[in-house]
Amino acid sequence: MSSQPPHPSLLIPGPIEITDEVSQAMSHYAQSHVGQPFVNTFGETLTLLRDLFQTKNPGSQPFVLAGSGTLGWDLVAANLVEPGEDVLVLHTGYFGDSFADCLSTYGAKPTQLKAPIGDRPQLPEIEAALKEKKYKAVTVTHVDTSTGVLSQIQPLSDLIRRVSPETLLIVDGVCSVGGEEINFDKMDIDVCLTASQKAIGCPPGLSIVMVSERAMNVYKSRKSSPGSYYASFKNWTPIMQNYEAKKPSYFATPPTQLVQALNTSLKQILAQPLEARFAQHRKVSEYVKSKVATLGLKQLATDPANAANTMTAIYLPEGLTPPEILPKLMSRGVVFAGGLHREIAARYIRFGHMGVSAMDESRGEIDKALEALKDGLAEVASAKSK
Amino acid sequence: MSSQPPHPSLLIPGPIEITDEVSQAMSHYAQSHVGQPFVNTFGETLTLLRDLFQTKNPGSQPFVLAGSGTLGWDLVAANLVEPGEDVLVLHTGYFGDSFADCLSTYGAKPTQLKAPIGDRPQLPEIEAALKEKKYKAVTVTHVDTSTGVLSQIQPLSDLIRRVSPETLLIVDGVCSVGGEEINFDKMDIDVCLTASQKAIGCPPGLSIVMVSERAMNVYKSRKSSPGSYYASFKNWTPIMQNYEAKKPSYFATPPTQLVQALNTSLKQILAQPLEARFAQHRKVSEYVKSKVATLGLKQLATDPANAANTMTAIYLPEGLTPPEILPKLMSRGVVFAGGLHREIAARYIRFGHMGVSAMDESRGEIDKALEALKDGLAEVASAKSK
Repeated sequence: MSSQPPHPSLLIPGPIEITDEVSQAMSHYAQSHVGQPFVNTFGETLTLLRDLFQTKNPGSQPFVLAGSGTLGWDLVAANLVEPGEDVLVLHTGYFGDSFADCLSTYGAKPTQLKAPIGDRPQLPEIEAALKEKKYKAVTVTHVDTSTGVLSQIQPLSDLIRRVSPETLLIVDGVCSVGGEEINFDKMDIDVCLTASQKAIGCPPGLSIVMVSERAMNVYKSRKSSPGSYYASFKNWTPIMQNYEAKKPSYFATPPTQLVQALNTSLKQILAQPLEARFAQHRKVSEYVKSKVATLGLKQLATDPANAANTMTAIYLPEGLTPPEILPKLMSRGVVFAGGLHREIAARYIRFGHMGVSAMDESRGEIDKALEALKDGLAEVASAKSK
Repeated sequence: MSSQPPHPSLLIPGPIEITDEVSQAMSHYAQSHVGQPFVNTFGETLTLLRDLFQTKNPGSQPFVLAGSGTLGWDLVAANLVEPGEDVLVLHTGYFGDSFADCLSTYGAKPTQLKAPIGDRPQLPEIEAALKEKKYKAVTVTHVDTSTGVLSQIQPLSDLIRRVSPETLLIVDGVCSVGGEEINFDKMDIDVCLTASQKAIGCPPGLSIVMVSERAMNVYKSRKSSPGSYYASFKNWTPIMQNYEAKKPSYFATPPTQLVQALNTSLKQILAQPLEARFAQHRKVSEYVKSKVATLGLKQLATDPANAANTMTAIYLPEGLTPPEILPKLMSRGVVFAGGLHREIAARYIRFGHMGVSAMDESRGEIDKALEALKDGLAEVASAKSK
């Protein structure tokens, strides 16, 4: 029996359903942010993140800040890129535009490599771009929450290391970490940024970032000061290192209850091999995508190879809009999201299938959602044909 | 009976004890950040903040962001001050130095007016400073959490409006809002920034800021773009206005559970007249301060008129340090904080008496803490005399 009251199943691409244990951790009693019990919890959480990101290099530096996933862009733009430097932004949807805006705010010069909607920039064009100009960093959205497009990190990393080895590889893993395979060391990633409320299965409110030793060295050798105060590596690095060494430290008060919840969710995730978790997400995703195809619906992702495993972006039948279908799903106890990509927002919906809803089949939420989608579409079609 | 498990009483100057209702709100089930139920809650919360800050001007703009109190400084420095502009920082401890650092990060030129430890800058010297140079803003720490010094807002505001009427009055109310009197309109404040985990009685993780119509106009007429992306008024103002109008809107995912908790705590606070709440905080503070004096202990605040009502910073007897006394308090179920002001950190401790611990006398926490302090000091003295 769940300790949470009955409620609609939240199957959007984040926030997602949380386990009872995570929910209970959220109501932890008040703790001092510099008292040993919380310091131990926070320190352990930072160490657990090394396991989640699969990094064994002690020079990798985790950060956990009160904020949203977006704050991770500020951390990158304000600390790792200096004003005037070029950044190549691989664009697979809404989040490429926004990351580029963020980079510009701090004086970087973003160049966007845009793919058609549902697709991703291809390696040959990325290689050509990298040979044209010296880029300080390449940013890629692992799963673009607006389109459900998955980018392949390993081949991109191989390309960068071959063509422009000093260029930093920045992975926006907001909708991927915890659901899609991330192997920080093997993929030779420099920054992987994410948020608590997606496949990690924690409530929203935490910006979670892993930074490579290479990137920390780039930060240390920068000529200008970081462009942000709240998002400054200078202010936070010693704090994170102290907490991980179980020593109290203060720059700004961490969100103690959210850290408790993250600690709980990381322990739940890491209780089984990560490969099994990724495999389960792939299995559920394939199931969802085949069922969606059976309903005669198309996906935004143009190819199975570039379709995310944590979510599916689904075109609605011609003439149908999200405000027509979403209430039909809600009346069946299922929450999906509307479109987010500016050009086609009114033509598609998004289904998040990650975290506990994907891992725990006994919850039955995936089938409930697919049934609701089928029945909801039929109800709308029947009303329209009258 | 509390729904929270037995735990030490957290009586530091934030985070503070939370009520059972706030604790339960933290474990709210997952909600879509753009679904109507959460949109309604967030919108109502923003409106409730107008009541908490006592502003009836519809041009006042509330902001609630995932972040800590510190993020409020970035909001001020990145949006309301342009590079090269002068800001007068009234310094009453640690937080003046840090706010000045933050202002410098975004290119402002802070001038600090420093008072001796335990005191605050005086009106004549502030007036002289304001006549010397044109300041874009004056910042003041209402309650300096590092020293327990209280600044008087109304006389400062009167002075600014008389001498330099266009200068923005920025109040750092992190350790004051919800405990010390803030009347945003009457005091003619331009920005009052705070955090969720102090006298508002919510867990940490929210940056809460009220901005005046005057300041919003200053922002709108700025020549340069805001210096931050995550802390940009440009990105957040339409979102806050949409939520308050109960319309879904997206820039970055708000921390849904923390917003539920803030909604709950604001309703609890506003269920009685704010004046009664401020009076109770004054009463408890006077009680604590007289008992502390009876124990032969001095306070950092040099004068009752500049002593905070939400906390007390207490000098330890000669030769005694926080690491000696704090564990004695902990063994009696009471958590105090050590010193924070860099110059004297090893010589004093801090006692937070705000929120539910001050309002609900039936909890008996204030007397428990005073007893623990008395007995703890006696235990240390007895051990030392052996």
